[in-house]
Amino acid sequence: MKYAVILAGGWGERLWPMSRRERPKQLLELVGEGSLVAQTLARVAPLVSVEDSLVLTGAALRDRMIEELEPIPPARIVGEPVGRNTAPAIALAARVLAAEDPDALFVVLPADHVIRDTDAFRRALAVAFEAADSERALVTLGIRPTRPETEYGYIKAGAPGAADGVFEVESFVEKPDRETAGRYLLDGGYHWNSGIFIWRADVFLAEVERHLPEVAAALEAVEGEPGTVRFEAGIERFYGEAPAVSVDYGVMEKADHVVVVPCEIGWDDVGAWPALSRIWPTDEAGNVVEGQAIVLDSEGTVVYSEEGLVAVVGLSDVVVARTAGATLVCPKDRARDVRAVVEELKRKGLTEGG
Amino acid sequence: MKYAVILAGGWGERLWPMSRRERPKQLLELVGEGSLVAQTLARVAPLVSVEDSLVLTGAALRDRMIEELEPIPPARIVGEPVGRNTAPAIALAARVLAAEDPDALFVVLPADHVIRDTDAFRRALAVAFEAADSERALVTLGIRPTRPETEYGYIKAGAPGAADGVFEVESFVEKPDRETAGRYLLDGGYHWNSGIFIWRADVFLAEVERHLPEVAAALEAVEGEPGTVRFEAGIERFYGEAPAVSVDYGVMEKADHVVVVPCEIGWDDVGAWPALSRIWPTDEAGNVVEGQAIVLDSEGTVVYSEEGLVAVVGLSDVVVARTAGATLVCPKDRARDVRAVVEELKRKGLTEGG
Repeated sequence: MKYAVILAGGWGERLWPMSRRERPKQLLELVGEGSLVAQTLARVAPLVSVEDSLVLTGAALRDRMIEELEPIPPARIVGEPVGRNTAPAIALAARVLAAEDPDALFVVLPADHVIRDTDAFRRALAVAFEAADSERALVTLGIRPTRPETEYGYIKAGAPGAADGVFEVESFVEKPDRETAGRYLLDGGYHWNSGIFIWRADVFLAEVERHLPEVAAALEAVEGEPGTVRFEAGIERFYGEAPAVSVDYGVMEKADHVVVVPCEIGWDDVGAWPALSRIWPTDEAGNVVEGQAIVLDSEGTVVYSEEGLVAVVGLSDVVVARTAGATLVCPKDRARDVRAVVEELKRKGLTEGG
Repeated sequence: MKYAVILAGGWGERLWPMSRRERPKQLLELVGEGSLVAQTLARVAPLVSVEDSLVLTGAALRDRMIEELEPIPPARIVGEPVGRNTAPAIALAARVLAAEDPDALFVVLPADHVIRDTDAFRRALAVAFEAADSERALVTLGIRPTRPETEYGYIKAGAPGAADGVFEVESFVEKPDRETAGRYLLDGGYHWNSGIFIWRADVFLAEVERHLPEVAAALEAVEGEPGTVRFEAGIERFYGEAPAVSVDYGVMEKADHVVVVPCEIGWDDVGAWPALSRIWPTDEAGNVVEGQAIVLDSEGTVVYSEEGLVAVVGLSDVVVARTAGATLVCPKDRARDVRAVVEELKRKGLTEGG
């Protein structure tokens, strides 16, 4: 059987103050109908057993996720007591699914990405599931680049794989500088690392044994069925012991048989404010204006107001975002530094703004 | 006797959204104790007959001004049914004072300026009153420039006058461009036009007769004592008939005997947002930060928050101002264009923000 494993930890801090700890990015309705996380599930629902799928989220967000992902039983929406990055979360899901179904195949889905072409996505997923099952490969979806993006990791594709549409992964490449990203774009052999992975539960667990023995050891604590007291206690111990490590660094870069399915699915991770220029309509001067705003003699701005009026005069390529509790102003090319604001808020013991 | 005539119309729209129609600039406490208008009165109180002084303000603001200027009797705080610029307002005050006291001397004071050196101001005023009385001159205070300001009009001083510290006015000069302002600064003979005028009521009325006959004709309607029904009815007719004209253009530029008292009194008209960099403390990067704010890697900014948090990252020389109802963002060198925002708000029928 096939399952979805939705990773809904984190809160999208680079989209602060639109996203914030108590209203994280995956709960926002950025495009289309419904929250990003609800759309994430709806997109794969026809391909997987929804009732047996799993969601990993922050303990504080679990109740909201239960509401939002109603077809998934509450027992299968796991609240992580602490975040340990992606590898432990996926390993935990693999252990649960493998115990229930020795042939379990699953797709790992970040809860807060936009995918506009659902049909193309499902087609790519079908190819990926096939490769994951028949070749026992670790499969990743690679997004064909459309711009020299410096905020994503890249996957360099190698030789064609056994099936159509599948390529061996030659290497994973860190976020490049602008010039390198330009070369990747022209080269054609590089794909954006989408963070969407497909594999058999048993195959992934074997890779965890080999490359992340501490995670594998911690997994021993996880026993019983989700929702039982025994399971909950195991989760507590697991998250107490497992080291924080990403699946990219901990597994993908080290495993032998890793393949990529290149695809064009209208994907965007909406990682930071400038992404809204890509997913929301712009005026003739390239401004995105959402909410009550007056934007004069400005170009390429992202102006967002949830409450109250925002007036912007004579500025280019800045982000101005107003919520009931906070206003952010920064140039688009400094949008990643919104993290520093969030850090500073934490340091000062200030709330994140309403 | 000496009197003050305080001009408290207008609301300081270039300081929007900090100032707004229902909370105009003259009611803000920008520096020192109390509102700008209360400080305006306190500054001259020892030199004039406070109970017989006059205030001209917008009809909608009259009640607030009565509170704010408590030593002045309510009857002497005149609500203008419509704004007609400065010449009619001052002519009206001159008519009232001349009727009460044929030797009335008065100082015209804008209600929303900052003057930090009260002693120097009072000394300059004493010189000005003397010249206004003994020479029957129209006297203006000229501020010694400290920077090549392009937002002020200038007064070119000519030959020394009869008394120490008084000079004939050679000409009034419109707002100059940067280069010209630089020359004025070096020249030493140019002074900022402060909008503070001193003269005898009868002398001013005679100038109005000569240069503004329409205003003089409209003045005929003004009869009776302030506070009486007859007076109020006259005011209505006067403002209905008088043309809108500034005292600078309508009288000062045309009158014969105009003199200037150059002075250094810590004057600032706080005309627009960048002025706050001059009157409020700055951090080592030249940022002015007022209210709850996080300002990272930015210089020369003016960041103001009345409510909620403002976060600014990676920007230079911008103004960011947040109130309960609105956020303004613009470069300092576009600060005069805040007017365009206010126009746009009016056009769209939006409120000015809370």
